[in-house]
Amino acid sequence: MENKPLEGFTFLFGLAEALGALGLILTAIWLGSYRGGFTWTSNPKLEFNWHPLLMMMGMIFLYANGILVYRSFRNSRKRKLKIAHAFINAMAFIFTIIGLQAVFDSHNLASPSPIPNMYSLHSWLGLASVILFALQWVFGLLSFLYPTLSAPLRATYYPIHVFFGINAFVCASASALLGLTEKAIFNVSDYSQFSSEGLLVNCIGVTIVIFTSLVVHLVTEVKFKRHPLPEDEMLLTSNE
Amino acid sequence: MENKPLEGFTFLFGLAEALGALGLILTAIWLGSYRGGFTWTSNPKLEFNWHPLLMMMGMIFLYANGILVYRSFRNSRKRKLKIAHAFINAMAFIFTIIGLQAVFDSHNLASPSPIPNMYSLHSWLGLASVILFALQWVFGLLSFLYPTLSAPLRATYYPIHVFFGINAFVCASASALLGLTEKAIFNVSDYSQFSSEGLLVNCIGVTIVIFTSLVVHLVTEVKFKRHPLPEDEMLLTSNE
Repeated sequence: MENKPLEGFTFLFGLAEALGALGLILTAIWLGSYRGGFTWTSNPKLEFNWHPLLMMMGMIFLYANGILVYRSFRNSRKRKLKIAHAFINAMAFIFTIIGLQAVFDSHNLASPSPIPNMYSLHSWLGLASVILFALQWVFGLLSFLYPTLSAPLRATYYPIHVFFGINAFVCASASALLGLTEKAIFNVSDYSQFSSEGLLVNCIGVTIVIFTSLVVHLVTEVKFKRHPLPEDEMLLTSNE
Repeated sequence: MENKPLEGFTFLFGLAEALGALGLILTAIWLGSYRGGFTWTSNPKLEFNWHPLLMMMGMIFLYANGILVYRSFRNSRKRKLKIAHAFINAMAFIFTIIGLQAVFDSHNLASPSPIPNMYSLHSWLGLASVILFALQWVFGLLSFLYPTLSAPLRATYYPIHVFFGINAFVCASASALLGLTEKAIFNVSDYSQFSSEGLLVNCIGVTIVIFTSLVVHLVTEVKFKRHPLPEDEMLLTSNE
């Protein structure tokens, strides 16, 4: 009886993790083999290559795993899960900040002249996702982990935290697709001839789409929801 | 008491409809004022302009309203709502097919040589969304409106229909953002100089993102869910 509601969870969760890892590996292969690999500020063009890889790691893979922690470790105590959720998302934020530094450097240090920043839809949606993600981290901390807000305010914020958490994650995925499209059009000269690099970029995009769909399914499906443990009830700060 | 659970619905629903209309108007202004307006096959370049407008109408605005019909007309009988849902989505599909014809024509009839089809991430994700949408329409019809499937199969398909319905809608929105990015990079020569056309294209994208978020919220928020009417219970084909 206990396991019945989780039918399918392990398979879908494993598939999601595998696709997340595949997305990272394909991105690393793409940037390493087709785009000249990775350096830091000595070569702005190659410094750029850190951007897609680190953003994929931060805003897609780790962000997803931060969300999924309440599903994948459902039998752990709520407080432990909250700490894991905050920790994984803090890691995600660190990767994200370095990934942003890489793209701004690669624009500002470009020769002969700098490349403008923040003009594209990719940059608008991407930065909005990062800001929303960061705000959620701070408000989440103040509401649920080291609660300074009153209980009614916390209860009001909880569904908002969940909704915007998933929303910013999907926006981050859409931003990644926009970034892949920009890079393919700017740099893959034979994109329209179905070149191997163009197909690889598209396959990274498809991987992100399926990964994102699976993660949203795993976290929103009612039968996969975590049931509060008896211990949780004893904690005033518990929210489910 | 009756109205309590719907607190906020009318405002958010109205805001979503206003944003959907704004997205269509901005797209029409963009294509009409900056991209030379609309003709059919006589000029493939201008025939293209039907593509963004018709896809916005079909796969974004009407698709969303087809989904929302169970929320916006919550007090109507289920069967009526199903017919409205199928009808609005059929309209969405007609706009979509003409919108696809426009882009394939504009590629195939381009001079001096045709533009390749289906190489970009936009085309992959966009066509996948349309195919998923069309399959959902057919399976929805056979499952819920003129049910040929057994009751257990219908019950199994119901959550799949809901999940992939929302999923394909979000993918269609992401495809629209990819399409806007492609067009801006290909044709807006001063996109990186924050030109008015570039900003307009980005604003259309932002409108789509907020519209999509609102629609997904309206349709997934538990307190906004439609409660079955007594009459619904009498129909074997009712699903909620």
